[in-house]
Amino acid sequence: MTQELTVGFVGLGAMGRAMAGNLVRAGYRVRVWNRSPAPVAELTAQGADAAGDLRGAFDADVVVSMLADDPAVEPMLDPALLATARPGLVHVNMATVSVDLARRAAAAHADHGLGYVAAPVLGRPPVAEAGQLAILAAGQSALLDRVDPLLAVLGRRTWRLGDEPYIANTHKLAANYLIACAIGAMAEAAALVDAVGGRSADLIGVITDSILPGPVHSGYGAMIAERRYEPAGFRAVLGLKDVNLALTAGGEVNVPLPLGGVLRDALLDAVAHGDGDRDWAALAEVARRHAGLA
Amino acid sequence: MTQELTVGFVGLGAMGRAMAGNLVRAGYRVRVWNRSPAPVAELTAQGADAAGDLRGAFDADVVVSMLADDPAVEPMLDPALLATARPGLVHVNMATVSVDLARRAAAAHADHGLGYVAAPVLGRPPVAEAGQLAILAAGQSALLDRVDPLLAVLGRRTWRLGDEPYIANTHKLAANYLIACAIGAMAEAAALVDAVGGRSADLIGVITDSILPGPVHSGYGAMIAERRYEPAGFRAVLGLKDVNLALTAGGEVNVPLPLGGVLRDALLDAVAHGDGDRDWAALAEVARRHAGLA
Amino acid sequence: MTQELTVGFVGLGAMGRAMAGNLVRAGYRVRVWNRSPAPVAELTAQGADAAGDLRGAFDADVVVSMLADDPAVEPMLDPALLATARPGLVHVNMATVSVDLARRAAAAHADHGLGYVAAPVLGRPPVAEAGQLAILAAGQSALLDRVDPLLAVLGRRTWRLGDEPYIANTHKLAANYLIACAIGAMAEAAALVDAVGGRSADLIGVITDSILPGPVHSGYGAMIAERRYEPAGFRAVLGLKDVNLALTAGGEVNVPLPLGGVLRDALLDAVAHGDGDRDWAALAEVARRHAGLA
Amino acid sequence: MTQELTVGFVGLGAMGRAMAGNLVRAGYRVRVWNRSPAPVAELTAQGADAAGDLRGAFDADVVVSMLADDPAVEPMLDPALLATARPGLVHVNMATVSVDLARRAAAAHADHGLGYVAAPVLGRPPVAEAGQLAILAAGQSALLDRVDPLLAVLGRRTWRLGDEPYIANTHKLAANYLIACAIGAMAEAAALVDAVGGRSADLIGVITDSILPGPVHSGYGAMIAERRYEPAGFRAVLGLKDVNLALTAGGEVNVPLPLGGVLRDALLDAVAHGDGDRDWAALAEVARRHAGLA
Repeated sequence: MTQELTVGFVGLGAMGRAMAGNLVRAGYRVRVWNRSPAPVAELTAQGADAAGDLRGAFDADVVVSMLADDPAVEPMLDPALLATARPGLVHVNMATVSVDLARRAAAAHADHGLGYVAAPVLGRPPVAEAGQLAILAAGQSALLDRVDPLLAVLGRRTWRLGDEPYIANTHKLAANYLIACAIGAMAEAAALVDAVGGRSADLIGVITDSILPGPVHSGYGAMIAERRYEPAGFRAVLGLKDVNLALTAGGEVNVPLPLGGVLRDALLDAVAHGDGDRDWAALAEVARRHAGLA
Repeated sequence: MTQELTVGFVGLGAMGRAMAGNLVRAGYRVRVWNRSPAPVAELTAQGADAAGDLRGAFDADVVVSMLADDPAVEPMLDPALLATARPGLVHVNMATVSVDLARRAAAAHADHGLGYVAAPVLGRPPVAEAGQLAILAAGQSALLDRVDPLLAVLGRRTWRLGDEPYIANTHKLAANYLIACAIGAMAEAAALVDAVGGRSADLIGVITDSILPGPVHSGYGAMIAERRYEPAGFRAVLGLKDVNLALTAGGEVNVPLPLGGVLRDALLDAVAHGDGDRDWAALAEVARRHAGLA
Repeated sequence: MTQELTVGFVGLGAMGRAMAGNLVRAGYRVRVWNRSPAPVAELTAQGADAAGDLRGAFDADVVVSMLADDPAVEPMLDPALLATARPGLVHVNMATVSVDLARRAAAAHADHGLGYVAAPVLGRPPVAEAGQLAILAAGQSALLDRVDPLLAVLGRRTWRLGDEPYIANTHKLAANYLIACAIGAMAEAAALVDAVGGRSADLIGVITDSILPGPVHSGYGAMIAERRYEPAGFRAVLGLKDVNLALTAGGEVNVPLPLGGVLRDALLDAVAHGDGDRDWAALAEVARRHAGLA
Repeated sequence: MTQELTVGFVGLGAMGRAMAGNLVRAGYRVRVWNRSPAPVAELTAQGADAAGDLRGAFDADVVVSMLADDPAVEPMLDPALLATARPGLVHVNMATVSVDLARRAAAAHADHGLGYVAAPVLGRPPVAEAGQLAILAAGQSALLDRVDPLLAVLGRRTWRLGDEPYIANTHKLAANYLIACAIGAMAEAAALVDAVGGRSADLIGVITDSILPGPVHSGYGAMIAERRYEPAGFRAVLGLKDVNLALTAGGEVNVPLPLGGVLRDALLDAVAHGDGDRDWAALAEVARRHAGLA
């Protein structure tokens, strides 16, 4: 099975590697680019081409990017890059970025006659490897139609959330916000239960076995119950970044997010106590400290 | 199948009716009592006996009570009642009550040589009917052993959370707290998504299909997405009561619960706007109002 | 100068002693009562009579009470006491009590044909000694007229805030709430300034010399700048009690007080860290801890 | 009285006009520049020179700037401008700007061998006219010494807060934060008092007459009591900007500011309801709305 589209792929972290590999296996011709060279070699061994530079990755019908944050994405908005992109290219940005960057990215691509689609995802690396991501897409319908087969390789379902790319980014920030709230709530509830002589492990056991099943409560809940925050599934500093992005997104449209304010403060507290690189489930330690628990 | 224990049952609301019926069907001799007579008739039609008064219900080996709140439970702490209870009686209080009441109840029963077990539950009436409740039990081991077969009829699993009854009540308040946080978080996230031109129904669809499955997010999430808060699954005034109970429980052991403070304020706001008797998912309307959304 | 009214006076703490002494010096016949005897002796040495018991204090034209909190006030609502009070007595309760107690107290006195006026005060013991308290009074006009000369001895101004006594208590709780917010804000701002290498003493100096003069900012501000919380002007546990009373008063009329929720959490945190008996300016230590400052 | 220093002055809003005028009257040769021409004419009529452009203003021994916000200040960091400034120039930036901009500004000036001092102020236009501002200065001692006579013309006291300019900006943000908290607290307390049938005007009267005197509580308090938010002393959008600057400053050094989170949400709510250009005392309307008060 060979696909006609040439796909540039930018960003070969744990998520990007898994996703690019799936595209290769699905028969796409994939030109990968990454700042550090090791993942490029890994992908070319699987059948991808090395793009050489960002420009090479943008010499494609579709470029998929999966980068860490706004600053990493910023170079792809460079007019000098976009001016030399293959005519008709559609850029599918799957990173979790700010609403502001999403807006500027869409405009920058449009300025050069290029398509831009936002398609951030829900799911961790194993889910990406299995091609089972939940894909939150937004952009013009015609563009979404065009990249749909490609997204079908990467995820089990693509949600179409609106015509403007930033709408997808807002949904993604909202979803992460829900995760943050769930962790923060478990952190507080665990402190309460422990303080009266109960066991937070029981609390997590009860709820995941009944009202709150699923990976967020069971995964982060186990970390909280065991007070084990390493290895980090998602680092507290990244959690703080995402909560701040949600607060900023809210601020732009005058939507107060009071639970987010509480989480921001607690994550700052975690970082101030040296837990920035531990999992954001370390919010449980913040709650314990505030209660004077050892 | 006939059981040897005689069981008093106090409180025949939607939950209590289902639970008492299951005990009857399991072969227990059940003496039911309820403030209003209609549910008593319903249960005697199923094979229960009418206790006549509270005192009659306490003339049993075990009395199970399932009442609405602290004031409803208070009469069962009356020394005049407890003095006339059948010797050796064990009271299994399955209501969601305050930690303070749980402590006083345990002491009052002990004063009269009676056993007291707290066993609040997670699950709505259909779950109760199916005998599939999650039961959060605490009390002396010997007492828990004694009522275990009975609890096995009512739920699919009994968690033993500690020797002191109030520990179970604290777990229950903590579990409700997690539900409240989940609803409050969805309310805010939905307002954000709607404000940028997305659809909160999509947000709920995405998360319940991936990271946050389960009855809390799908049930209350649907109400939020549809902005339909009637009929109420759980009324906002009751949600406010439970959040206040959690805050009070935290206050007694110096555990700050900052997310709960936010929820308390939002629920007060809901009540102030006439939504006290609608479902507490009406928190979504509070978030919308604060954002100036129509 | 001798006054015709006989005044019972209940509660001879630091505030009450100063106030009762002023009444004696103004020529009133004052019958004092206090749980511990030493202050009674001090006042009789100044010319007061010892009431012997609460009943003796209520054998008067006006009884003024100045007690610590709700539980201390509760015995004065006892029907057995009120039934034996001198006919026509007016009780002027100058303590900071809950809105709920204020309502019950008014009703209990009315049941026995007695008058009840709430008149909590702003000012510390030296202000009380100087007869310069700000008096926040509420109750029926005729009753306020009657006790007005007496209040004029105790304070420099009596504010008439409404016909229902609890309105005065609400104003008092609101005033204390403003103090709590001022302290909490200085605590956070001081942590910010210190964290960037500034000096919180400068911040306090700047503001008290310009935009925020007055005893609250200069007094508590100095404690914060010096990180000296003893001797306590007002203990953290009492601050927590008053913030909780304000939150409860708000809850009864559906008024969310979100700043108060933050203060409640911070005060709980202070108590959890052993600062309950230090001045509530120790909120500054809470802010420092959350920021990881030594 | 003639001074030897030539002073450039950038920014002739209500504050800048008053300050530049005072410098002219003190005998300085002042070269003024402003984006719109009218205030320039007003100042030249008082004896100032028109600088013609920003470059002209920077052809001076000292340049004082008093602009609205970060974007307005940004052009003064342009290397092309700084490269042509008079050698030895000291820039005294008296605006309320972000900590981040303060850091970048200091570095940009140092790159060109120029001095940079931050000297934001507390005080409104009438205070500026009277030369009675409180000046919060930070920068190298030698530079502060040099501009001290000039600052003495503008204010009644100059506080030296540190060697790094951003420290002064942090103090200024902290001071504004205290004002915001005071207003927010009065807003909530007023809603509480009004909700129980009291009068918020009484509350404001009581506190400004006793524990919380001074311009912040009496000025904004009057607006709250009268529910009159126009003309704005300080617009809600600017208040929101400053609270956000404080939160950001805190975020950079891991200092949580939970009261600020509450204020941010309330100010967003105010803006969402069309009160962005009214005085930030309109926070009182937010508190009223949340309580369901008309």
